[in-house]
Amino acid sequence: MMARDRYLAFANSPFGKKLTGAIGLPQPTPLERFAPGRPDLLGPVIVGAAQGGRLAAPLAELLAAAPVATLFHGEYAGWTDIAAQHRLMTGRFDAKSSGTVGSAVFDATGIADPDDLAAIYRFFHDTIRSIARNGRILVLGTPPEDAPNLAGRIAQRALEGIVRSLGKEAQHNIAAQLLYVAPGAEGAANSSLRFFLSPRSAYVSGQVVRIGKPVAQDTDGYDSHAPHAGRTVLVTGAARGIGAAIAEVFARDGAKVICLDVPQSTADLLALAQRIGGERLTLDITAPEAPKTIVEDAMARGGYDVVVHNAGITRDKTIANMTPDAWNIVMNVNLVSALRITEALLDADALKPNGRVVCVSSIAGNAGNLGQTNYAASKAGVIGMVQGFAPVLAARGATINAVAPGFIETQMTNAIPLTIREAGRRMNAMAQGGQPVDVAETISWFADPASVGLNGNVVRVCGQSLIGA
Amino acid sequence: MMARDRYLAFANSPFGKKLTGAIGLPQPTPLERFAPGRPDLLGPVIVGAAQGGRLAAPLAELLAAAPVATLFHGEYAGWTDIAAQHRLMTGRFDAKSSGTVGSAVFDATGIADPDDLAAIYRFFHDTIRSIARNGRILVLGTPPEDAPNLAGRIAQRALEGIVRSLGKEAQHNIAAQLLYVAPGAEGAANSSLRFFLSPRSAYVSGQVVRIGKPVAQDTDGYDSHAPHAGRTVLVTGAARGIGAAIAEVFARDGAKVICLDVPQSTADLLALAQRIGGERLTLDITAPEAPKTIVEDAMARGGYDVVVHNAGITRDKTIANMTPDAWNIVMNVNLVSALRITEALLDADALKPNGRVVCVSSIAGNAGNLGQTNYAASKAGVIGMVQGFAPVLAARGATINAVAPGFIETQMTNAIPLTIREAGRRMNAMAQGGQPVDVAETISWFADPASVGLNGNVVRVCGQSLIGA
Repeated sequence: MMARDRYLAFANSPFGKKLTGAIGLPQPTPLERFAPGRPDLLGPVIVGAAQGGRLAAPLAELLAAAPVATLFHGEYAGWTDIAAQHRLMTGRFDAKSSGTVGSAVFDATGIADPDDLAAIYRFFHDTIRSIARNGRILVLGTPPEDAPNLAGRIAQRALEGIVRSLGKEAQHNIAAQLLYVAPGAEGAANSSLRFFLSPRSAYVSGQVVRIGKPVAQDTDGYDSHAPHAGRTVLVTGAARGIGAAIAEVFARDGAKVICLDVPQSTADLLALAQRIGGERLTLDITAPEAPKTIVEDAMARGGYDVVVHNAGITRDKTIANMTPDAWNIVMNVNLVSALRITEALLDADALKPNGRVVCVSSIAGNAGNLGQTNYAASKAGVIGMVQGFAPVLAARGATINAVAPGFIETQMTNAIPLTIREAGRRMNAMAQGGQPVDVAETISWFADPASVGLNGNVVRVCGQSLIGA
Repeated sequence: MMARDRYLAFANSPFGKKLTGAIGLPQPTPLERFAPGRPDLLGPVIVGAAQGGRLAAPLAELLAAAPVATLFHGEYAGWTDIAAQHRLMTGRFDAKSSGTVGSAVFDATGIADPDDLAAIYRFFHDTIRSIARNGRILVLGTPPEDAPNLAGRIAQRALEGIVRSLGKEAQHNIAAQLLYVAPGAEGAANSSLRFFLSPRSAYVSGQVVRIGKPVAQDTDGYDSHAPHAGRTVLVTGAARGIGAAIAEVFARDGAKVICLDVPQSTADLLALAQRIGGERLTLDITAPEAPKTIVEDAMARGGYDVVVHNAGITRDKTIANMTPDAWNIVMNVNLVSALRITEALLDADALKPNGRVVCVSSIAGNAGNLGQTNYAASKAGVIGMVQGFAPVLAARGATINAVAPGFIETQMTNAIPLTIREAGRRMNAMAQGGQPVDVAETISWFADPASVGLNGNVVRVCGQSLIGA
């Protein structure tokens, strides 16, 4: 059950459309999300590239497998050969006759000097108006620290400013991201290219993602339509809201899901487990014996493939009015228990090869929030946990990443007073809150067996919220 | 000449106070800024620390030199010995009887585990209401990547969430910062402790600053009241607004300032140079011969001590409506010329020992902005320039850093339409725009000869703007 955004419904009614237009109120339109049976990728795709780009082949492979038709920007005539090699439909993009497209992708990995950035300007200058509502903008770069020289480093870093500006000006639910793909990591980009060109990433925009050296080989027999088939996934805080959506998405994509929550939520947990063919694990993650109990469960199942640390609570008060208990319980549930459980699972070798840990941070962990010193501390600590564990997990062929949700429609946010809730909902490029499934799809992408180059990332699921630091 | 914030004036009139209070409008109060003759530091200072803190001695030294009286939090009885060693007045803080204070400083460098963060909660829980208007909150930490283990790394990273939340809830123009001081860099913290406890940092809040291994020895005969005495400083774009304020602050603090701007601004430039006893350098920084001319000027003066790349322009349009010229000129003025000039000065060895380069980025470089793909690209590129040059300059005993202004009251921002201008002005923790001098003071701190541990930092001067990424 999702909380309702009455304004979104109103603004899309015939009368609401007229009224909001006449008086200049936000006019959000419902996001188009993934559903089984719908196309995986938002095509056709306009492609462009600067000289020396490294990602034409991985992109062509993905698009050929879909298949999705492509159009190439006038400066990228080299695409016709690549398209021919991959038996991919293509033609030259023409703003007047090509019609609208689902996505526009620019391979900027070859940009070696700030002067060369004019190529990306020309590409989006020519194409941005042809991108359909709910479409995608994707820019591919080289991590600045991997650029061969200073001019390249500067140019690559400049891409962040371009992509975040494009996200803010594209409107109509068009999402824009920057994927930095390290040299040598081209083969690990497939799952990320797919996610960011699909309706699964509907509420993710303005994000910068780094794809680095793969930590493991891609799994044999991998099916991108059921990426989690045969995998065992633990989800904490699964009974409601975002946790339940995570469990549902993993189950939809083939996983056996272990739904963990506190004893008080047994009824919800039971209903969920039955609905998705999953299992229950009822315990309080802050209890001293919790890590041991979880390790036992993992070992009994031959280990977990994926652990999602989703359990989280708020106890909001300004620090002067906050009790020690409110400080401690938020830190324990949101941060310390996730740390202890992860350490115990690693100590017991209970995370399987090519395993995944995915944490849930928050934009409050990045930006801070009034009345949330405890919550923001715990969620900033989660970022520290992801950064600290990343090399440890890489050494075991596994990864750890985090999502940082913005305003998501749940029972928790539905309890916020109306005016503050409305501000939170509208202060993002999509002028609406996200749904729990948006967070779940992003976690599923991190957890994908093919996401072997994603480690130590923190990606916001916030519709490109204005709020940050 | 500063642009006027009429709302700020109105909200502080007797009638305006009543009206804004009655209908719930923002009630900003004027920031208290530094002026010669006023106290350097905002005292008294409440001090607190977690076990194992490394910064008691540098802090005590600074406060003893001022001198400023201290109060210690009940859990920090060890401060009495440190105070005695430094001949510093102290007493135990008591919320009921101690009265208000200018600053509260917590040394969290010793925190080694998330559980220990409760100590910082208790400190601010007890003291935050005793901090006067326009006061300071300062948290000192160990860079997460330098923590000895994972639990320490997580706890140190969590500090960001706490400090940013404190900044948002403290109100009354109280600014909050987190200084990460690397092990071994304690001796390089003085200029930063001083800046963040002084009225000079009025509009800087919610920032995270890293102090690392010193790149040079502190200069002999250094006087913190005239830190730039005897130094030669180049300021580009000096004729107006932020540039003129930078020139004035450096001149006030003892420097010979070379004021650079385009020929069209000769009249303004002449008046400024006369007012501050500085010199003019009239040229277009994008001209091919500009780097050479600047190097010649530097060599004729025995080199520059400080170079401030302040020149910047906007040419706002959505990317679909932007001309190639508007793209190119913004990139050239804001980014490429700064890169070429810096390279030329380094090639000619025209930056003196313990030299400083300070760049001007923007929160648009961090967050992107509608209609500013060119500007945001250039300002994000500036961040790349700072990060890329930092090791190069460290190897020469010099540093490079950047400020990233938020909404600053200038002729440029005064030209923004009223409603957008008002949103920009109020969407920060201080509910007002900054003044050019706020940016200038921050640049002066980076350029201070004692700021030998600051390299590769980007600090926003934005009143803790909500806007970010």
